[in-house]
Amino acid sequence: MDVLGHRVGGGELTLIAGPCAVESEEQLMPLARSLKAAGVQWIRGGAYKPRTSPYEFQGLGVEGLRLLATARDEFGLAVVSEAVDETSLARVEEWADVIQIGARNMHNFELLKRAGRTRKPIFLKRGFSAQMEDLLWAAEYIANAGNPDILLCERGIRTFSDHSRFTLDLSIVPRLLAASRLPVFVDPSHACGRREDIHALARAAVAVGADGVMLEVHPDPESARSDGPQSLSPDEFFGIASDLRHVHAALRSGEEVAT
Amino acid sequence: MDVLGHRVGGGELTLIAGPCAVESEEQLMPLARSLKAAGVQWIRGGAYKPRTSPYEFQGLGVEGLRLLATARDEFGLAVVSEAVDETSLARVEEWADVIQIGARNMHNFELLKRAGRTRKPIFLKRGFSAQMEDLLWAAEYIANAGNPDILLCERGIRTFSDHSRFTLDLSIVPRLLAASRLPVFVDPSHACGRREDIHALARAAVAVGADGVMLEVHPDPESARSDGPQSLSPDEFFGIASDLRHVHAALRSGEEVAT
Amino acid sequence: MDVLGHRVGGGELTLIAGPCAVESEEQLMPLARSLKAAGVQWIRGGAYKPRTSPYEFQGLGVEGLRLLATARDEFGLAVVSEAVDETSLARVEEWADVIQIGARNMHNFELLKRAGRTRKPIFLKRGFSAQMEDLLWAAEYIANAGNPDILLCERGIRTFSDHSRFTLDLSIVPRLLAASRLPVFVDPSHACGRREDIHALARAAVAVGADGVMLEVHPDPESARSDGPQSLSPDEFFGIASDLRHVHAALRSGEEVAT
Amino acid sequence: MDVLGHRVGGGELTLIAGPCAVESEEQLMPLARSLKAAGVQWIRGGAYKPRTSPYEFQGLGVEGLRLLATARDEFGLAVVSEAVDETSLARVEEWADVIQIGARNMHNFELLKRAGRTRKPIFLKRGFSAQMEDLLWAAEYIANAGNPDILLCERGIRTFSDHSRFTLDLSIVPRLLAASRLPVFVDPSHACGRREDIHALARAAVAVGADGVMLEVHPDPESARSDGPQSLSPDEFFGIASDLRHVHAALRSGEEVAT
Repeated sequence: MDVLGHRVGGGELTLIAGPCAVESEEQLMPLARSLKAAGVQWIRGGAYKPRTSPYEFQGLGVEGLRLLATARDEFGLAVVSEAVDETSLARVEEWADVIQIGARNMHNFELLKRAGRTRKPIFLKRGFSAQMEDLLWAAEYIANAGNPDILLCERGIRTFSDHSRFTLDLSIVPRLLAASRLPVFVDPSHACGRREDIHALARAAVAVGADGVMLEVHPDPESARSDGPQSLSPDEFFGIASDLRHVHAALRSGEEVAT
Repeated sequence: MDVLGHRVGGGELTLIAGPCAVESEEQLMPLARSLKAAGVQWIRGGAYKPRTSPYEFQGLGVEGLRLLATARDEFGLAVVSEAVDETSLARVEEWADVIQIGARNMHNFELLKRAGRTRKPIFLKRGFSAQMEDLLWAAEYIANAGNPDILLCERGIRTFSDHSRFTLDLSIVPRLLAASRLPVFVDPSHACGRREDIHALARAAVAVGADGVMLEVHPDPESARSDGPQSLSPDEFFGIASDLRHVHAALRSGEEVAT
Repeated sequence: MDVLGHRVGGGELTLIAGPCAVESEEQLMPLARSLKAAGVQWIRGGAYKPRTSPYEFQGLGVEGLRLLATARDEFGLAVVSEAVDETSLARVEEWADVIQIGARNMHNFELLKRAGRTRKPIFLKRGFSAQMEDLLWAAEYIANAGNPDILLCERGIRTFSDHSRFTLDLSIVPRLLAASRLPVFVDPSHACGRREDIHALARAAVAVGADGVMLEVHPDPESARSDGPQSLSPDEFFGIASDLRHVHAALRSGEEVAT
Repeated sequence: MDVLGHRVGGGELTLIAGPCAVESEEQLMPLARSLKAAGVQWIRGGAYKPRTSPYEFQGLGVEGLRLLATARDEFGLAVVSEAVDETSLARVEEWADVIQIGARNMHNFELLKRAGRTRKPIFLKRGFSAQMEDLLWAAEYIANAGNPDILLCERGIRTFSDHSRFTLDLSIVPRLLAASRLPVFVDPSHACGRREDIHALARAAVAVGADGVMLEVHPDPESARSDGPQSLSPDEFFGIASDLRHVHAALRSGEEVAT
């Protein structure tokens, strides 16, 4: 699959990074510049935020999408942004390069059908209580409506285990790769909810065979309007991105060792 | 920590391999030779098996321990074997180098106290519904009774997710490493229950920072009396072991890249 | 709360019964007559069905709503039917008396906000991996948008336990009754997925203090286009409805015994 | 089944009540008197306590068993007490009437086999992550070793749901009653961990068809050395016991209504 000339899958490692939510031009533009400098070709950022409470920040809407598009124009970054209903989906389709369907909407079958009628690739996150089969059926809703360009993403499931926000289920990655031809991503940021563990989990995601990793990065995590505790600073991200590429290359040469 | 002169933790990668259950001399000895040839220094094998049904194979008992000791004497392999009650613990203490307390006995506090009074290191597996805190308390039972030599092991937890037998919770590894000084292992074989995914998950375990990996290997997985579907053949294991060491080395050099 | 003159909560026991999906006039009308005869004042029936696979029956749409409205006009039954997006919500609002938001849409915040702008009560089902807090926040989305008439419903959560489809979490009922003023319902049909256990679980729901129970009933469960295995026949339902009212009365007199 | 002339199952409702742990004569004797006055024929009390931390109160041992035996002699109460290993099992067998195997030892197969060689009935609690099948296999371990007198008990499972300590899985009760001939109990105290909800959940347990309910009662819950928050006072218990018998009678007459 190709997005803006950036290849996904087929042995490439794709890093998608950016803030949980787009907050302002001052937040986004320097960050986009850092991502570019770190060799990243994709930016994520939420303009429409599904939040547990109605009193939390719900996103900038079209204004946020416009900022993301500016980042694309300036730095050549492909833009991934989430749609939460029919209206926002039309907007995201217009402004972004890839439309994200979040975990909380993986079972929103009407939105999936509607996503199937767009011309942009869909980044589909596993619901946090979805069986693997449910995720593949969700992808089938999209494909069946006419859109075969789907990227799957594991982002943690709900379990009794309370040392992390959700339990990252990396064992689904080889299963999905065996069961479908779709690229498989991992989002350790939302799964673990804790900055200190992101590097180790991102390495594990690469090692288990994921085609890409999505990471939350914020120019000033302490002041983030959402997901601060799990957001990396640009400096932290820079080191991690280098390392992940290094690990990815080592794994590929290891495959030759193993065979 | 040192066992039979083999160092654990501190940057070393320890591979522990062997059959679910010791079945016979014909099964164990050629396998031990293969493990040695693959550069492994530790062998696992069950002589006392906790089985869900009373009608399943319950292990060879002392006869199994004797075979493991022969493997140690011949090949210099450190022996890890499971104890399931006071009687078997005394036997395992006598014949093996490391005493395993399995997931189903992690909450068996009397056995933990008794393990705390032995002179051999304890390989303590996380119960499949244990919080991280429960695991650390179980270790405290052992340490408090006098035995500080404890190795922790993640082996999968029970969740709704049905594409694997248990859900391997790799995110506990960095948490445990941060919370205690004990070495942390991962057992992907029992977690996923499927041979094809073991390599990918073992790589992820190394990548997430585990001090070692425990793998089930059987000279003829199809005929294994237990856990055949998740057991590797010696040939498969040979390739995986080489690769894991390669990955481990790459990760260490990657750490320098990242910092 | 009052719907079509039928009181909900405040010591009343409300039974809501009907088919998973409205299939035809021949299916619905005799069933509505049976429900009326069994003393029931509410009918449920899906016109828009959220289904795991896109190849399963997706409901009759407006035609289904029309049939339900006919049942209301003929038998005085209040109609509960599910909305799955903005379009269906407008239709359900027009034709039904109570708008259901299903478990898979409990996290669909845009639909919740839209439901908050209707003039009809909302029957809000707990998502199958929602914490109690998530359910109350979902209700807050609706109330905050202007609609205070909300009925909550427990319908089972996803756990490792595989003897039932979902695990019915009855302990949430007293918690919800203590934490809010909203009526609390229980749907044992979707939770257990097995006709034989519905009676026992419905009794438990009444005993734990639920204001009402929702039950799937089909004139011919074997031929149902969805949820046949958990649907009751009208005869089975007749006996259960009588019994539940009897149990409910006994519980009220028991409260006097206990105090 | 008959214990000390008290019948279990077959339409009887058996209430088992008492403190989490036996603490002293001053605690136990007045409580035993209250239980007798409330019409209860069974007392529970732990002399050997499996505790998560080694620094928590571990029980009085034989001294606790002696106090329970005194309560039996004085008030005719059948005594249920937990064994945690071979040694305590021999003691409990000697002093008590029913031997409890707790949730944390349901997978302790050696203890199960040993329990199968005693002459006293076994009160077997479901492990908090046990499938129904695991529970039945655990019972089979006991029966297969020679002891057919087994009482099963649901006490809550580990799930993501955090409004209660464990999630009480009442839907297992009709399944177990259909799958075996063993009496089935429910322990709402350990499941919910909150005094206020015990009454509602105990009612639900009776309503779902359980043969009995186990409840924690303490003469002074605030000062209990363990499980205080979920322990009932004798007065609270008195009202609940009356009500449960009333509900049980009403359910039996309801069955005639329903058929």
